[in-house]
Amino acid sequence: MAGAAVIIDGSALAESLKQDVRKRVAALGRPVHLAAVLVGATPAGEMYAQRQADACRNVGIDYELRKLPADVTQEQLKQEIHRLNADPSVTGIMMHLPLPQGLDATRMQHEIDVIKDVEGVNPANIGYVVYGHTIIAPCTALSVIELIKSTQREIRGAEAVVVGASEIAGKPIALLLAEQMATVTLCHVATRDLKLHTRRAEILVVAVGKPGLIDADSVRDGAVVVDVGINRITLADGSKKTVGDVDFDSVKAKASHITPVPGGVGPMTVAMLLRNTLRSAELLAAHQR
Amino acid sequence: MAGAAVIIDGSALAESLKQDVRKRVAALGRPVHLAAVLVGATPAGEMYAQRQADACRNVGIDYELRKLPADVTQEQLKQEIHRLNADPSVTGIMMHLPLPQGLDATRMQHEIDVIKDVEGVNPANIGYVVYGHTIIAPCTALSVIELIKSTQREIRGAEAVVVGASEIAGKPIALLLAEQMATVTLCHVATRDLKLHTRRAEILVVAVGKPGLIDADSVRDGAVVVDVGINRITLADGSKKTVGDVDFDSVKAKASHITPVPGGVGPMTVAMLLRNTLRSAELLAAHQR
Repeated sequence: MAGAAVIIDGSALAESLKQDVRKRVAALGRPVHLAAVLVGATPAGEMYAQRQADACRNVGIDYELRKLPADVTQEQLKQEIHRLNADPSVTGIMMHLPLPQGLDATRMQHEIDVIKDVEGVNPANIGYVVYGHTIIAPCTALSVIELIKSTQREIRGAEAVVVGASEIAGKPIALLLAEQMATVTLCHVATRDLKLHTRRAEILVVAVGKPGLIDADSVRDGAVVVDVGINRITLADGSKKTVGDVDFDSVKAKASHITPVPGGVGPMTVAMLLRNTLRSAELLAAHQR
Repeated sequence: MAGAAVIIDGSALAESLKQDVRKRVAALGRPVHLAAVLVGATPAGEMYAQRQADACRNVGIDYELRKLPADVTQEQLKQEIHRLNADPSVTGIMMHLPLPQGLDATRMQHEIDVIKDVEGVNPANIGYVVYGHTIIAPCTALSVIELIKSTQREIRGAEAVVVGASEIAGKPIALLLAEQMATVTLCHVATRDLKLHTRRAEILVVAVGKPGLIDADSVRDGAVVVDVGINRITLADGSKKTVGDVDFDSVKAKASHITPVPGGVGPMTVAMLLRNTLRSAELLAAHQR
């Protein structure tokens, strides 16, 4: 039926998740304290950090921004991370990206304590996801799973197709879908016949960064479609608009459920960072650290 | 054409790989020293370790077996691993599995120094594979990639299907195939229509542990088939035989290339452990450790 898809309300889902986090933070009986490292602050970086601070305080999480100058050395940054790892008052650590040139983000993420790693970006945490012993998983990938689960669609045994094989989105999403026992196909720039795969997907996750990549012709009837792309485009009248990778208007006529952009994965990812921050604090408490 | 598949000779490929390792070990100018930890030795474990020792010595790698009693505590095992991490004369560390009950293998593997981790089993090393910054990858997965490359079949853009989603085989194989830019589908016990996928695979890797799982009807004409399964079966006359997961005789009539069992992935995995051990020593030398 044309226009039939249920639009998954990421903002509402995020709000309910935040309320749950707020309750559990209050119940924990010890402060939840997130230290965010920002190297070489830019106005955009500061604004983003400010919004994050507000989101944290809103659920009772203490937020501390540790600013380091743009010319910090890898060794100095590593020492700062080690200080935060060792500080018992710090329950979570995140590092704003991108880092200035010359600093190796993956190596620095590897220095973050596995349990305090609220973004789930330490390679060991990704490895634990592969091993099926997930401690903290990456926020975007967790958001995608939560959005799919909100539709009540069974993930186990479903034909899931992930388009885009980036380290921060596509690959972790594919791994979490495999952990949920979907049959997962990972497509990317080298895939020869993308439609062959997207057209058979019962669950379709698109994380490329290319507006209009997926149109109705690429989607199976009744699919659950999650759009991770966030693109700023300029319309014919010169105005700007934020869109995903999926041609929302045409695809929503064919899918059973679809996430909008904005208002889908975006707000959920913020909420998931808060939930991971709570989880780190809970794990530290369980480990009596 | 019936019976047309080229049988990939894993033993010959392993032999040539070992010769290359032997040359590079000799050229390194410092000892390559593998410490293997064996907890709670059994006759089978000792025999396996002995064969490994022979394989190492054969290419000029020093092999040292560190036996620990079956009742060792997690803390004692961790301390032993830390001693090996800190010992500059030890260039590689591996831990024989399974560990006795009560010891958490994944946690212990996480304690192994990332560079000395010659089996590539530290979750951080798996994570680095996901991140596309591979340091040391798991031996079985590397073997599969080498066996495919030996056929000259282009991996980039190929439709690759991995059957079996175990932590030690299927998942790392899928990740390495994705790193090589294949379009990868990961199938497993919850996959509803396995043939749908295996029949469209240009590269088919099977790692389940179920004899006869894949017959000719499940394979695409001209596919490259890599059989990771190793199963001991009893024949009608009561004799025993080692077979893979693929019905070799029927599938070889349809595939373009196929690995035999035994003589395919098995010998390559041993050779890959030696190559990883060399790689660890080379990386330590490059890091002046």
